[in-house]
Amino acid sequence: MKSAIAELEAKGKAAKEASKRLAYLSTDIKNRALGNISRDLLERKAEVLAANKEDYKEAEASGMNAAMLDRLMLNESRLEAIAGDVLNVAALPDPVGEIFDMRTQPNGLQIGKKRVPLGVIGAIYESRPNVTIDISSLCLKSGNAVILRGGKETIRSNRALARVVQEASANAGMPDGAVQFIENTDRALVDHMLKMSKVIDLIIPRGGAGLIRSVAEKASMPVVTGGIGVCHTYVDKSAAVDKAVAIAYNAKVQRPTVCNALDTLLVHADIAGRYLPLIAAEWAGAGVEMHCDRRALAILKKQSGLKLVPATDEDWGKEFLALVAAVKVVDSLDEALEHIARYGSGHSEAILTEDYSSAMRFLNEVDAACVYVNASTRFTDGAQFGLGAEVGISTQKFHARGPLGLKELTTYKWIILGSGQVRT
Amino acid sequence: MKSAIAELEAKGKAAKEASKRLAYLSTDIKNRALGNISRDLLERKAEVLAANKEDYKEAEASGMNAAMLDRLMLNESRLEAIAGDVLNVAALPDPVGEIFDMRTQPNGLQIGKKRVPLGVIGAIYESRPNVTIDISSLCLKSGNAVILRGGKETIRSNRALARVVQEASANAGMPDGAVQFIENTDRALVDHMLKMSKVIDLIIPRGGAGLIRSVAEKASMPVVTGGIGVCHTYVDKSAAVDKAVAIAYNAKVQRPTVCNALDTLLVHADIAGRYLPLIAAEWAGAGVEMHCDRRALAILKKQSGLKLVPATDEDWGKEFLALVAAVKVVDSLDEALEHIARYGSGHSEAILTEDYSSAMRFLNEVDAACVYVNASTRFTDGAQFGLGAEVGISTQKFHARGPLGLKELTTYKWIILGSGQVRT
Repeated sequence: MKSAIAELEAKGKAAKEASKRLAYLSTDIKNRALGNISRDLLERKAEVLAANKEDYKEAEASGMNAAMLDRLMLNESRLEAIAGDVLNVAALPDPVGEIFDMRTQPNGLQIGKKRVPLGVIGAIYESRPNVTIDISSLCLKSGNAVILRGGKETIRSNRALARVVQEASANAGMPDGAVQFIENTDRALVDHMLKMSKVIDLIIPRGGAGLIRSVAEKASMPVVTGGIGVCHTYVDKSAAVDKAVAIAYNAKVQRPTVCNALDTLLVHADIAGRYLPLIAAEWAGAGVEMHCDRRALAILKKQSGLKLVPATDEDWGKEFLALVAAVKVVDSLDEALEHIARYGSGHSEAILTEDYSSAMRFLNEVDAACVYVNASTRFTDGAQFGLGAEVGISTQKFHARGPLGLKELTTYKWIILGSGQVRT
Repeated sequence: MKSAIAELEAKGKAAKEASKRLAYLSTDIKNRALGNISRDLLERKAEVLAANKEDYKEAEASGMNAAMLDRLMLNESRLEAIAGDVLNVAALPDPVGEIFDMRTQPNGLQIGKKRVPLGVIGAIYESRPNVTIDISSLCLKSGNAVILRGGKETIRSNRALARVVQEASANAGMPDGAVQFIENTDRALVDHMLKMSKVIDLIIPRGGAGLIRSVAEKASMPVVTGGIGVCHTYVDKSAAVDKAVAIAYNAKVQRPTVCNALDTLLVHADIAGRYLPLIAAEWAGAGVEMHCDRRALAILKKQSGLKLVPATDEDWGKEFLALVAAVKVVDSLDEALEHIARYGSGHSEAILTEDYSSAMRFLNEVDAACVYVNASTRFTDGAQFGLGAEVGISTQKFHARGPLGLKELTTYKWIILGSGQVRT
């Protein structure tokens, strides 16, 4: 263990050293590195797929379930998609080097800000080997060094992928050490990594809620936390019923397993009698189970073909990640706002209304990363928001909120251009 | 203790509740509250000064030294200055509510960001009672609720000041609970406060390096850390000597006890023979003690009237906060950059040069909050940088760097204005 820690610290030091040159590397070199990575992933696919096959065999023998096995599996078409994503990152604008807010002070000092990388980013992730490529390409494009620590089940795949990244980027003129890969999958090493705040400027955990919570609790440096979305859609009394049915249907059904899917539907009492039977019929067609409060149940109980369950206290504030929705009838916008303030996770919240004042109040008063009027919360996503690639979705308030793009992997430094000024 | 913790938690809850309304309070009401605070500080000066007198008497009796006593002492002219600062904050533009980066997506969704307060800010500070007013006015103007926890030595002063703030702001229409004051000065309560990450969105510690370090280590929420400045000024071989003397003199002498003052002077060997005798003579006139490396000592040892001390390893990377400077002769810009990377605290670093390429390399390669060419590092300050009031100076990279103004007490939320869009 002692030598593994020493090795980890050496890798941290090497990444920090590399980050100094990466900080002002030209966009040309960064894009060439990404081009090489994309190309080499395809040229060296035999090597990568062979390593993945070994991981797969071992995982299968250990009794891993089919969903998990599917997650760690690579094949030619998946590798091609991953290689294509790297080119997409290369095509994004380089956030680094932008000079902004530059002003000349009365004494002639020119004072402004220059966008620079954060430095070294640590990635801690679970079974999907594509994260190795995904995070590496985002970090390199934004001028950051990266330390990769993937899961044990995909160690061989990750090692092969990291090797491709390291060699392809070095061939493009990237500094040695820009991409570090931790071979040892001992958990104690993760704990040590989370204490290396002198070297690692930001930790990105990728995986389930358990991983993210544990990393956020232990890390001594900033962490991108998020990914947990308890999302409400509130159907106001003045909602346009057809639109409101289509939006709630989309928010729940289009991809129920992700964080921006609808969890709780709040419906104003004045419209519930008209609205609930319509959305219930649509949802029933898609197999959605509805956990209804007393009043919603009273409206729907005679309708045939529905999966209705009386809601319990645990249903409010629950992220279902499945074809299940909690449903509650409320008497006012105020009650909806209170419910969201109490049970929301600060991810994505929507109001469906044709009333201007209700829309404005909802936009003002809901405290969440993304607040919607008359649209599906499923849009909370870096690509949909026009950021290109996405690093993650933050439910923190500090630094950046909601979908994080390349720019959110940067910070700034003040630059001050003088001609001999002194302070009086 | 149990009841004190319950009281603290109740105050946290009340602040959170108030922060919801504060978030969208009009600038008019916020400015009226600040105007009331400024006025009432003067109208109620007898009450405030009487409380301060009691603090002073007790501190004096306990044997507190003169410098500390001076720090906690209020008088009429100090109160007037504090009241004036509140009006200055009122005059600053309101950062809240700005809508930016608003774009219309191909599907017609309008997606952008709206600037909003962070929520609840905790202030933990030591003996200066003016911080009670200072932090309150910055928080209220930026739409944040605040929980104040001042030092034991000034409890009566802080209580009187907090009462003025609470009553004056409530009279202007601020929500109840916007300003919370912790009466109990037990240290265990601070530890508990630092765990209240569900309620407190940011902690601002104000005081010595010990306080700041301890708060940063214990806090489970973001902390504005900074205030520690190990500042280097590098005199390049192509520096204009007269300007370089004036700048280094200013950086060390104009106010030696603050974080942006010069600590280490690095001088290129090619110019050291001409430059060092000149700055040494100027510094000697101001009483500066020079801790010189071997080569600087060799140049200066025959010059009369200097306070020279051979530098030891501890001098590099030391924040002197006094009329002391470490001095080192270097052979190249590279050596200067390496020294700064190794010993700097990421606060303020300067190069003095007439050479374009050296200036550009320094700007690119130094990783610090503020990087200067040909100016005194003493300018690192919110007012000097054009931010108006200053919350603190951050040496972190996340969220904001260098001097923090009102805007840095805010975050944003994404707002998405639709007309029925669903994701396909």
